[in-house]
Amino acid sequence: MTRYEKVAAVLRERIEHGIYRPGDRLPSIRAVCQEMEVSISTAQEAYRQLMDATLIESRPKSGYFVLPGRAPSVLPSISRPAQRPLDISQWDQVLELVATQRDDNRLLLGRGVPNLEYASLKPLSKILGGLHRSADLHGFNYDKLSGSPELRQQVAKLAVASGCLLHPDDILITTGCQEALSIALRLLTQPGDVVAVDSPSFYGTMQILKASGLKALEIPTDPQTGISLEALELALEQWPIRAIQVTPTFNNPLGYTMPPARKRALVQLAQRFDVAIIEDDIYGDLSFTQPRPPTIKSFDDDGRVLLCSGFSKTLGPGLRVGWMAPGRYRDQALHMKYVSTGASATLPQRAVAEFVAKGHYERHLRVAIRQYQRQRDVMIGWVQRYFPEGTGISYPQGSFLLWVELPAAVDCVRLNERLARHNVHVAPGSLFSASGKFRQCLRLNYAFTLTPAIETAVRTVGELAGEMVGESRASLV
Amino acid sequence: MTRYEKVAAVLRERIEHGIYRPGDRLPSIRAVCQEMEVSISTAQEAYRQLMDATLIESRPKSGYFVLPGRAPSVLPSISRPAQRPLDISQWDQVLELVATQRDDNRLLLGRGVPNLEYASLKPLSKILGGLHRSADLHGFNYDKLSGSPELRQQVAKLAVASGCLLHPDDILITTGCQEALSIALRLLTQPGDVVAVDSPSFYGTMQILKASGLKALEIPTDPQTGISLEALELALEQWPIRAIQVTPTFNNPLGYTMPPARKRALVQLAQRFDVAIIEDDIYGDLSFTQPRPPTIKSFDDDGRVLLCSGFSKTLGPGLRVGWMAPGRYRDQALHMKYVSTGASATLPQRAVAEFVAKGHYERHLRVAIRQYQRQRDVMIGWVQRYFPEGTGISYPQGSFLLWVELPAAVDCVRLNERLARHNVHVAPGSLFSASGKFRQCLRLNYAFTLTPAIETAVRTVGELAGEMVGESRASLV
Repeated sequence: MTRYEKVAAVLRERIEHGIYRPGDRLPSIRAVCQEMEVSISTAQEAYRQLMDATLIESRPKSGYFVLPGRAPSVLPSISRPAQRPLDISQWDQVLELVATQRDDNRLLLGRGVPNLEYASLKPLSKILGGLHRSADLHGFNYDKLSGSPELRQQVAKLAVASGCLLHPDDILITTGCQEALSIALRLLTQPGDVVAVDSPSFYGTMQILKASGLKALEIPTDPQTGISLEALELALEQWPIRAIQVTPTFNNPLGYTMPPARKRALVQLAQRFDVAIIEDDIYGDLSFTQPRPPTIKSFDDDGRVLLCSGFSKTLGPGLRVGWMAPGRYRDQALHMKYVSTGASATLPQRAVAEFVAKGHYERHLRVAIRQYQRQRDVMIGWVQRYFPEGTGISYPQGSFLLWVELPAAVDCVRLNERLARHNVHVAPGSLFSASGKFRQCLRLNYAFTLTPAIETAVRTVGELAGEMVGESRASLV
Repeated sequence: MTRYEKVAAVLRERIEHGIYRPGDRLPSIRAVCQEMEVSISTAQEAYRQLMDATLIESRPKSGYFVLPGRAPSVLPSISRPAQRPLDISQWDQVLELVATQRDDNRLLLGRGVPNLEYASLKPLSKILGGLHRSADLHGFNYDKLSGSPELRQQVAKLAVASGCLLHPDDILITTGCQEALSIALRLLTQPGDVVAVDSPSFYGTMQILKASGLKALEIPTDPQTGISLEALELALEQWPIRAIQVTPTFNNPLGYTMPPARKRALVQLAQRFDVAIIEDDIYGDLSFTQPRPPTIKSFDDDGRVLLCSGFSKTLGPGLRVGWMAPGRYRDQALHMKYVSTGASATLPQRAVAEFVAKGHYERHLRVAIRQYQRQRDVMIGWVQRYFPEGTGISYPQGSFLLWVELPAAVDCVRLNERLARHNVHVAPGSLFSASGKFRQCLRLNYAFTLTPAIETAVRTVGELAGEMVGESRASLV
């Protein structure tokens, strides 16, 4: 046991014995150093380990706090997907979720859209407005195929926080993260190939697999530590897997963050089997703790990780500004980018570059993160209060998406049918599976400004789910 | 012979006998009606036929004029591509053309970019600026997956001029025409499939074929009437062709416009063999005559034509606003659009919709078309003056691209190497072939405001090409 593990073990024991109780502030780093006679970095590493275990959290300018006590049963259960490659279905459900936008009075509680109401976003409007109004019409011309050099430079700077040393030329700007994921999958595969994915998995990626004629091999995934490396290893031995696709940080939808050691181990596993990793880090900047968790890419020493990200979850998806760091696949990615959409739109790139360069991005992140962290706890409180007994809830350390596992009697596709009368819609869990699993699960968004109307909607979801549980019991009698 | 064909034949005879000479104004429609005792629509149809034959042209508010006399040898020769499906190469050359944008002091005479300096574009900047500055941050949210309803409505209205009756729901907004073409090809094919293309053919489409593992079957193409229907029919009998990809109006690069009767015949041929047609109409609105030529889509009565277009060649490629009317393939196209980039960027769509709705688009087209028509003749004059004897030149009735066929001794890839010293670059013809044919051809852009510097550059191209012809002769001695 290393020194920091010993410190962490002592602190963990005190939490488990109720010496520090949920909501309590923990001793400061300095206090721990004095008490246990260790260095600052050791104390920090111990706290980091406790955060990774979701026992504590850090709050900006306030310190470290014990997280609300959660019985283990409150976490969603580990996934048990089929043990063979599957064709993807569920497009109809995805279409319903993504196609209903305007002219839709329903409250879409499950959408993956950030809060766009914060004043800290306004400088971006101003910058975009200014760029467009400037007499110069060069903004209507193409930018470089790989993207605006200014933006690539800012992205390279931002990536340092996730442990990556990227050169601006390592980066391609894309039309949203979706194009980055699409490019990555297309350049690595041929129709019929098998791709290993975490499970549940983002429906957008699953639909790329469907469109490209690929098969998904869903790997069991732990709601705290992510994709099972043990199951993945077995799968790599058994199947001709062409790529591993994961969202290891603030996973959508499960909410976990893979501990750094597991991220490193995943790279080593991929190296052993000579497989590429597609890392979706679209939520990575929305970390409730600082520094943000490292990417898998930060452990990549032979260019096999294709890191995909963008600004859709921080600045807004309507901008369509994404990026990728495709490692050793840069040339193929550039070709795929060209044939997919040509160069990316010019002025949005320059505007985002200016927004980041002037410090607005960092300021906006601070605002959004603080709100999301609070709203997570409010939303969890509502789910605990209004949802049927036996409901499991994730506890994400970043981003704005909650995964809720209801009792097995609840079918969330049918739940949505009942919710339609109330103009409410959730993202049913089956969206996140190749074959319609996770029907008793749903995804909630807590980026909304949480008004009483939202609380009423969440309560309605819980009550109608409760009715389904009741009906199921009655039918058993 | 119908009545209008008789009228056209009389007029054609007069032109051929020098009664009306190049540059002469022809009798007005009204005068023809009186002289030949026919209806206005018959006279108009006769003039339309002569325009299709590129014997005359109409100039806004001035009337009809005889085109400059051209010996048949001045037109580029009909293409003789390989008679078998080919894998695509040439990405290196395409990359050189599309990747060199900023930080490049060279004059790129071959780029496919419109003139972005006209004041008639400025309202678009104002509208975009206004939309972005407005306090409302909804512009950062997704729009509908199929695109902004406002823009789809405007596109449907514009399509009427090309003979299409489209409902806004028939239209998908895309990230530039390139995404539309990419979606169309991907949804119709599997890797290894054969696609029939006109030849020469737009390099962007060829690279989509390459990225998707498709084979191009290049069909001989006439520089006046387009893809050979006879050769295409033979090819359809011989090969398992999955789709026909053409740019039938103001073809890039050859410049021809398929006569309406041939467009209709192409649809019938596709129906006979049950093959889809991908129609690239990106240059269609830049017609020097009004009304603009009909699209192939306008003859499509069973939804097999996937019409692809956008605003890159009229308003600017940096906006990345394109669209497609995928006919019976709408559902698959929507899925492919989702996986490719998600919804398209929100505010550029709304801005273009407003620009069109307020009449700015029509005004801007008038300005651009008038300039391009004049500049075409200036550029042709320069090529005739400065290029070696035996050079063939296209005579497009719209758009801003000229196809130049030099004597066989000239290799335009090598010509570009020599031009590099003069900071000049042309688009070598080999870009437009699957297998590097058309090396003695090049594409010139006449959208530039034609300054003495441009004339000097064109002269340099001609002189260096002349040197290559001279060297070839010398080596034969």
